[in-house]
Amino acid sequence: MGTGLRARDVGLVCGSLPAGPLNSIADVPGVHVGHRTLNHGDIRTGVTAIVPHGGNLYREKPVAAVHVLNGFGKSAGLVQVEELGAIETPILLTNTLSVGACCTALVRHAIEHNPDIGRETATVNPVVFECNDGYLNDIQALAVTEADARAALAEASAYVDVGAVGAGCGMSTFGFKGGIGTTSRRIDLDDRSYHFGVLVLSNFGRPGDLRLPDGRTVAPAIAQPDAKAAEKGSIIIVAATDIPLSDRQLKRIIRRSGVGLARLGSFWGHGSGDIALGFTTANIIGHDEGAALVEQRLLNENRIDILFEAMADTTQEAVLDALVAAGSMTGRDGHHRPGLTDALKNLPTTRS
Amino acid sequence: MGTGLRARDVGLVCGSLPAGPLNSIADVPGVHVGHRTLNHGDIRTGVTAIVPHGGNLYREKPVAAVHVLNGFGKSAGLVQVEELGAIETPILLTNTLSVGACCTALVRHAIEHNPDIGRETATVNPVVFECNDGYLNDIQALAVTEADARAALAEASAYVDVGAVGAGCGMSTFGFKGGIGTTSRRIDLDDRSYHFGVLVLSNFGRPGDLRLPDGRTVAPAIAQPDAKAAEKGSIIIVAATDIPLSDRQLKRIIRRSGVGLARLGSFWGHGSGDIALGFTTANIIGHDEGAALVEQRLLNENRIDILFEAMADTTQEAVLDALVAAGSMTGRDGHHRPGLTDALKNLPTTRS
Amino acid sequence: MGTGLRARDVGLVCGSLPAGPLNSIADVPGVHVGHRTLNHGDIRTGVTAIVPHGGNLYREKPVAAVHVLNGFGKSAGLVQVEELGAIETPILLTNTLSVGACCTALVRHAIEHNPDIGRETATVNPVVFECNDGYLNDIQALAVTEADARAALAEASAYVDVGAVGAGCGMSTFGFKGGIGTTSRRIDLDDRSYHFGVLVLSNFGRPGDLRLPDGRTVAPAIAQPDAKAAEKGSIIIVAATDIPLSDRQLKRIIRRSGVGLARLGSFWGHGSGDIALGFTTANIIGHDEGAALVEQRLLNENRIDILFEAMADTTQEAVLDALVAAGSMTGRDGHHRPGLTDALKNLPTTRS
Amino acid sequence: MGTGLRARDVGLVCGSLPAGPLNSIADVPGVHVGHRTLNHGDIRTGVTAIVPHGGNLYREKPVAAVHVLNGFGKSAGLVQVEELGAIETPILLTNTLSVGACCTALVRHAIEHNPDIGRETATVNPVVFECNDGYLNDIQALAVTEADARAALAEASAYVDVGAVGAGCGMSTFGFKGGIGTTSRRIDLDDRSYHFGVLVLSNFGRPGDLRLPDGRTVAPAIAQPDAKAAEKGSIIIVAATDIPLSDRQLKRIIRRSGVGLARLGSFWGHGSGDIALGFTTANIIGHDEGAALVEQRLLNENRIDILFEAMADTTQEAVLDALVAAGSMTGRDGHHRPGLTDALKNLPTTRS
Repeated sequence: MGTGLRARDVGLVCGSLPAGPLNSIADVPGVHVGHRTLNHGDIRTGVTAIVPHGGNLYREKPVAAVHVLNGFGKSAGLVQVEELGAIETPILLTNTLSVGACCTALVRHAIEHNPDIGRETATVNPVVFECNDGYLNDIQALAVTEADARAALAEASAYVDVGAVGAGCGMSTFGFKGGIGTTSRRIDLDDRSYHFGVLVLSNFGRPGDLRLPDGRTVAPAIAQPDAKAAEKGSIIIVAATDIPLSDRQLKRIIRRSGVGLARLGSFWGHGSGDIALGFTTANIIGHDEGAALVEQRLLNENRIDILFEAMADTTQEAVLDALVAAGSMTGRDGHHRPGLTDALKNLPTTRS
Repeated sequence: MGTGLRARDVGLVCGSLPAGPLNSIADVPGVHVGHRTLNHGDIRTGVTAIVPHGGNLYREKPVAAVHVLNGFGKSAGLVQVEELGAIETPILLTNTLSVGACCTALVRHAIEHNPDIGRETATVNPVVFECNDGYLNDIQALAVTEADARAALAEASAYVDVGAVGAGCGMSTFGFKGGIGTTSRRIDLDDRSYHFGVLVLSNFGRPGDLRLPDGRTVAPAIAQPDAKAAEKGSIIIVAATDIPLSDRQLKRIIRRSGVGLARLGSFWGHGSGDIALGFTTANIIGHDEGAALVEQRLLNENRIDILFEAMADTTQEAVLDALVAAGSMTGRDGHHRPGLTDALKNLPTTRS
Repeated sequence: MGTGLRARDVGLVCGSLPAGPLNSIADVPGVHVGHRTLNHGDIRTGVTAIVPHGGNLYREKPVAAVHVLNGFGKSAGLVQVEELGAIETPILLTNTLSVGACCTALVRHAIEHNPDIGRETATVNPVVFECNDGYLNDIQALAVTEADARAALAEASAYVDVGAVGAGCGMSTFGFKGGIGTTSRRIDLDDRSYHFGVLVLSNFGRPGDLRLPDGRTVAPAIAQPDAKAAEKGSIIIVAATDIPLSDRQLKRIIRRSGVGLARLGSFWGHGSGDIALGFTTANIIGHDEGAALVEQRLLNENRIDILFEAMADTTQEAVLDALVAAGSMTGRDGHHRPGLTDALKNLPTTRS
Repeated sequence: MGTGLRARDVGLVCGSLPAGPLNSIADVPGVHVGHRTLNHGDIRTGVTAIVPHGGNLYREKPVAAVHVLNGFGKSAGLVQVEELGAIETPILLTNTLSVGACCTALVRHAIEHNPDIGRETATVNPVVFECNDGYLNDIQALAVTEADARAALAEASAYVDVGAVGAGCGMSTFGFKGGIGTTSRRIDLDDRSYHFGVLVLSNFGRPGDLRLPDGRTVAPAIAQPDAKAAEKGSIIIVAATDIPLSDRQLKRIIRRSGVGLARLGSFWGHGSGDIALGFTTANIIGHDEGAALVEQRLLNENRIDILFEAMADTTQEAVLDALVAAGSMTGRDGHHRPGLTDALKNLPTTRS
């Protein structure tokens, strides 16, 4: 289904910071990703799971933050992340109308591992993000089941597949086939190396607006029905790092996802749910913490610009990664999205 | 199961503004409420539906706002209401772990009435609020089904039942049996009368902290397990009016729900998801609006204090209404919550 | 001018937590307060300075947070506190039209102690809060000068005068004479005692709405011109502690100032600028920090309810402290505000 | 001092929407701009005044919104704009340490035209924005006086000077001389033409990061001291329109200023105060409004994308306008900033 290519395989690199060894969100130690892809008949959809660490997330909550660039979206779980600065489940990505099924799946998953939920202890806050894949997918079918969500969780590993997989199966970007993309950067602080990774579910942008890192714009050869129409769709950006950060610092960093989107040619359109979540594995909040006071390490804020830059660069490159990897796809009712790689072959090498 | 009483039947009145004829949220013309109550075995839960008007809500979206007093909660749909200032589905209330099922029910309900959703037009933003009824209810059973949510929607009418009904079936408040409560106020502006109504799903407050309008505190006669423990639970406050307001004005008004809660003895505890939503039926956003510019009427903001006062008074009284109506209840594992009315009988008439 | 009394001297105590030894914000080690009072002719105004610690605040920035309960106000400096979670100057309180003069005074004060400001290093963010004392004070005179602000800073000490002093000179509260009030609580965490203190500049509330801790309401014997008019004025609430907290935790805590105001009979009126700032002396951000990573201690968030309660109790009691200490005052054009203590003498001991 | 050129004179055009006849914020009928420039000795600073309409702004308040992209800034007046969705004074721009003087000037100006301020009616909320011009200007001199602010107000007209004028006198951008820039777009809705204009005070960006609309980057020929250092400085973006909008719609629109900045090569650096304000002259809030309900016209939100695009395009072009118009400048201690136009002459026409 995909091209087998990554953004860097076709020369698309964003910024000057070095990538991590896998060039994926899994360069952050412990972060795993799994997909469940549904591709049959008029169904082009799925679920993608991002698992922040290998322990019990409800017991050991990563510090986290969310930022809404444009809130035309139906994601779940943001209220509590905003209040408490932490997540307590894996993060699921899916299509807009399947958020309910994925919430329920995360709830049951948490109860299985924590039988005191809703009895001796609090309830659980499932975090589910979504984009509208209705152009290629029969989204009204609500095809994603709880079992599909569980399958994505079960398959999570340090190998991150990209393109038209998982929740990315039916997504579109700038009139091309979109989907899942990822990239990472190595960040050196004092005497140690850390990693900063991003994974996107990319489903935004008007056909004709896509801009490559060198300034050239690329449009689908075949006219797309939404060309110069309203900017619809959505994009979900998930950032992970092992750098110690506070929730406020994370929130400042992930806000710069908007810079990456703007460089790509988007103006964060009205009809787009553009939402970012960031977490750090270096600060964990213990559900059963006994001490009155706890220690945290934070970044010296005078050093934060390198993370702002990393956020902008990785958001930009992860979207290009999704576009390059995705290939073309024909979906429900014969709707078709071309792949970016074909368009790149025909692109003049000089800027118009 | 309930007492058949309202707060005013036992002399509990908040503020000096006159109540509407039904003294319920249904005094706002067009607003209907329906319940689906699940009470069997260890199950004490349900769904409550608030339907803002009798038309197609997706096509005719009431102007709305949300405000989070304390975000230890799992409600769904707030991001889009915050961005666009409108709702486009009925509002469902349920237990914390059944949010997913209710979201899916609202999605299917919207598609049935709007077959273009996710195809020729955008997707839909289901609005679902929740409290944790796990003390009386076997919340891990995830007993609420999509069919239950649909039943609550189907039964919606201008008659508003209160107490241990619908989503209120298994809720607790200040150590007493809580649940659904409602009240309204008549507001005269220039030459016309309007109404302002509130409905709460009340499940908050530490035993011993409840304070009546005259200043007396009331504690359960039987010691409750959460006395002087952390303030847990949650409260959802839904306000409706036919006064023309902007979303910003609505947001300012519903923020004053916190005043009502404070008067009752709460300090908006850490573990409580205290969230308010308000809507007006006097400003409707047309999904298929063709004109570039639209007219709205707003309140002269110099007059807004009366609505701040109404919000504080109705939040306070609606909680007392839930407490008075609810009676006592024994739930899962023999857990018991006494009714407030019994405690009131034994209360000294003078303040200690 | 004042009564020489504190709230506790007339039996007004809020909540059950123990007060600190001084029962003032200066129970937090290092916190100093100074006043400059202007009381001549038609002038009833001044400046109050809160100095978080004895060091160079620009070099050693206390972690801090702000929260706006109702934003009908003209305070300065909030944007940067919100972004960076820290303050870098003393906090000045004054009348609404003198914010500019106090900003400039703080700027010059910072430059004197840090000659690299605006040259080799960044600029400085002055934090100035205000209320409108125009009923008793000729506020149009802009009587406060930079020298007055400097005088308040210079007089700062651990002795905190209350009532009609400093910025509180011309303020009104619930139709009575208001002003500066303070109180503190001792908080024990694991094996150590900490303190949590609040200082208010109290200038809010409609005559007739004041409610004492036992539920009785108190109105001025002489009808006040703003009785049952719009709730105008404002209140500034400054909280200090030596408990280690993050900026997010501080923000959650100071939000509960709204609970204290509601208990007093306020609904956070439209025309009132109700704003809170909190800081901790236990977490300091070094302006010249060299290390990439820094350590912070935070509160185990499961223990935060005691600080929510302390915030509500101290806000409530500090306002009563201002009212009790202030005495009566006649100001510009013969405008008069009675003192609360006189009204308390005539108050029936039983609740009506 | 300046070049006498505008961005379009050297071929720098952003986006495809048509410019207004003046290509300035004054294309919005009634909007006037005035400057007071201080350029002597080591002083390179000033004040710029934006006057939304020719009437009494305190009596007839334009609907407005603010948005903070990065809050490392000291601007004044944002709290009340956020709460009430309106401004009630002209907008002043100046250097960081002169905010206090400009606040006081606006207060006195408002009192002169409204002698009931602080007596029979409320106080007034001055709106003042700032950037740090300390590289070229002796900012510690606090050179701007109240009289300077009044002079800028007095000189306001429909002729908008750009470059190193007013508050822009000492500002820097991407290592070049920055300052004031402006541009506008004509927007046709149904049968009528409207205008949307932006004025920036541009003082942000790291040397070497500037990117032209065609993708080429431009760096100063002479190495600048802050090259690849932290992104400091700030940018203030003021948007005006005669299109009827609500405050929420304005807030959504001005948020897209971040898109314009990102296109220019910025990632909204840590040390930069990047703040936007927008107002519409088509919706006016009457201070003395008598009716309980008022009418407003709003944009059909389905049409808002064109304003998002206009905001991104005008922010981008207004910064380029400031750069092109500013020329080069030598300031305090011989600090020098080259002009962009010189660098453009030497720029290769093909992208590297």
